Amino acid sequence: MNNQTFVPGLEGIVAAETKLSSVDGQRGELIIGGFPVEELASHASHEEVIYLLWHGRLPNELELTNFKQALAARRSLPEATLQLLRAVAAARAPVMDALRMAAGTLSLGLEEDNNDQTALALVARFPTVVAAYRRLQQGEEPIEPDSALGHAANYLYMLTGERPGQAQTRGLETYLNTVSDHGLNASTFTARVIISTDSDLVSAVVGAIGALKGPKHGGAPGPALDMVFEIGAADRAEAYLRAKLERGQRLMGFGHRIYKVRDPRAEVLAAAAEKMYRAGGDMSLYELAKSVEETAVALLEEYKPGRNLQTNVEFYTALLLHGLGLDTELFTPTFAIGRVAGWIAHCFEQQATGRIIRPQSAYTGEKNRLWVSLDRR
Amino acid sequence: MNNQTFVPGLEGIVAAETKLSSVDGQRGELIIGGFPVEELASHASHEEVIYLLWHGRLPNELELTNFKQALAARRSLPEATLQLLRAVAAARAPVMDALRMAAGTLSLGLEEDNNDQTALALVARFPTVVAAYRRLQQGEEPIEPDSALGHAANYLYMLTGERPGQAQTRGLETYLNTVSDHGLNASTFTARVIISTDSDLVSAVVGAIGALKGPKHGGAPGPALDMVFEIGAADRAEAYLRAKLERGQRLMGFGHRIYKVRDPRAEVLAAAAEKMYRAGGDMSLYELAKSVEETAVALLEEYKPGRNLQTNVEFYTALLLHGLGLDTELFTPTFAIGRVAGWIAHCFEQQATGRIIRPQSAYTGEKNRLWVSLDRR
Repeated sequence: MNNQTFVPGLEGIVAAETKLSSVDGQRGELIIGGFPVEELASHASHEEVIYLLWHGRLPNELELTNFKQALAARRSLPEATLQLLRAVAAARAPVMDALRMAAGTLSLGLEEDNNDQTALALVARFPTVVAAYRRLQQGEEPIEPDSALGHAANYLYMLTGERPGQAQTRGLETYLNTVSDHGLNASTFTARVIISTDSDLVSAVVGAIGALKGPKHGGAPGPALDMVFEIGAADRAEAYLRAKLERGQRLMGFGHRIYKVRDPRAEVLAAAAEKMYRAGGDMSLYELAKSVEETAVALLEEYKPGRNLQTNVEFYTALLLHGLGLDTELFTPTFAIGRVAGWIAHCFEQQATGRIIRPQSAYTGEKNRLWVSLDRR
Repeated sequence: MNNQTFVPGLEGIVAAETKLSSVDGQRGELIIGGFPVEELASHASHEEVIYLLWHGRLPNELELTNFKQALAARRSLPEATLQLLRAVAAARAPVMDALRMAAGTLSLGLEEDNNDQTALALVARFPTVVAAYRRLQQGEEPIEPDSALGHAANYLYMLTGERPGQAQTRGLETYLNTVSDHGLNASTFTARVIISTDSDLVSAVVGAIGALKGPKHGGAPGPALDMVFEIGAADRAEAYLRAKLERGQRLMGFGHRIYKVRDPRAEVLAAAAEKMYRAGGDMSLYELAKSVEETAVALLEEYKPGRNLQTNVEFYTALLLHGLGLDTELFTPTFAIGRVAGWIAHCFEQQATGRIIRPQSAYTGEKNRLWVSLDRR
């Protein structure tokens, strides 16, 4: 390998070995913790998936009980974090900014070198931060976590004050599981670079939130759903989408940088959304979305033949999270609530290698400038 | 290039092109903004170096005046940041943690998409955060910035309440300039990965602080000086160092992962320290350090022949910053105060490429696990 060849975007370079997840974009396959995502996501509680990512296997009954308790006991926020969230809400900062700021303070009261405790506290407190901030944004007081509820159900409870039904909880768990890990995406890679300097988990996770914030990474599941709402009725889909494609506009929710066939997560989330909407008794939005999807995929093949632009994870994420009562601004923070388990698992792996990630740069500037005093410039 | 070859630590991989700095470890050369570090660091004010990194050339008189004013006008902290620092001080968090937390809140009151304003505010406020936190740690109130002082002098003023003399200011400017950029180190790389997702400067800088915190990166300039103090007198250096080497212990302040000859920054900082101690009228510590250095380099050649272990940047950093009245815990935060200019300059460069940094991982785990219900595990 030529040491001096610049690899833009590090494309094609393998920067880590991992047992956590495998993304095969050509075949549309995603493996998480050894399980195909279709096998894992809709069966497991989110706590089971976190345990799987951190321990390499599913927990037995006693281990799961202890793990759930350990998480539930760590949900409350330090007073300084809550105070900060109040000030941030007054400044009307976006939720992802608030999550980044608050997460940075979660080291308070923890022993920095206690990796396991910090990991538990980070995962446990992400939903509390997001829900508390959302309440404060709306001029309402945060709701204390309920330790009788699981991780996913408690998040919905802290947002709304209502204990969610089984179908809603199952829908959210399936979502969190589906997005819990996805190879070496930019936020996960950020976490690994930071922890590779022997820094701490909070620093790594805060960096990862910053990367996930970027529109090129965390994406924008909102617009996909906005389109469905604008279309409004199945029989208007074709005319609407055709007009958009004629204008050369992108259809949000279709096509993915890595997946060249249907994103396996879309499949899982579509099934989860269907169950959840069915349990809610109103299938109209789900059916409209399904029909928009079918029309969009067919038209994309007509307008961009051979590109095979398929439904991506954003389309059904938006449908599912909307059905849970979450508005658009909560989509990326909720993504972070699922992904933090993966970030931390990658940190554990990186720590085990004991190696710093430190690529090189190629210098393209001048070399021998001479100092010129201010009055001669 | 084989797409599936794992490159541990990305060693030897070029992840970015840059006009900002060039590190030639074999020849012991460091170029910053086109100038050899020896040519630039001791001549320029720190504001000139920031301008150079951000604009590719030194400012003329009017540009420099405007730039200094723009920075000086942005030094005060948002009220929420100060409140947070008070709470963090009460929790007795380390200064680097406080800097990471506070930096995360510096987006408050700024327009996120105003890159230039955010860049100025970040650089302007780093010294304010560190000095305010140090005062709070000591149970004292923060000192308001003095806009009549330059960036470096004002930092010392906010720490102590005394306006520093010219020799001290010059010493600190030379230090900040020397560490302002250094190729694609782990913190700079972190900033580039985060900003490459189209995230914001605050997120990138916060991630970089997290990476710099790690002992494998920000290092520990403290122990190098502790050793000098323990030795105490030049005639005790050989016996002390020999005993340490006989026990197989590492000599802190010597040897560098990249520089195989003398770190060019050590040269610049040694000269700066000499001038500063001379102006202060007491050369004893400087001379002791010099003599410890000479003895250490000679003994390292004896005990580890051919390794060519030379004085690194940490040794004279510690001597210089100690002479400015900074204690060990302020060394890495002060490093960050100098490096933030480089982080932001790299973010500008990365933004101009418009490209996400997204390497791959190689999956080494199982692939076809089947779900087993909890009662059968």
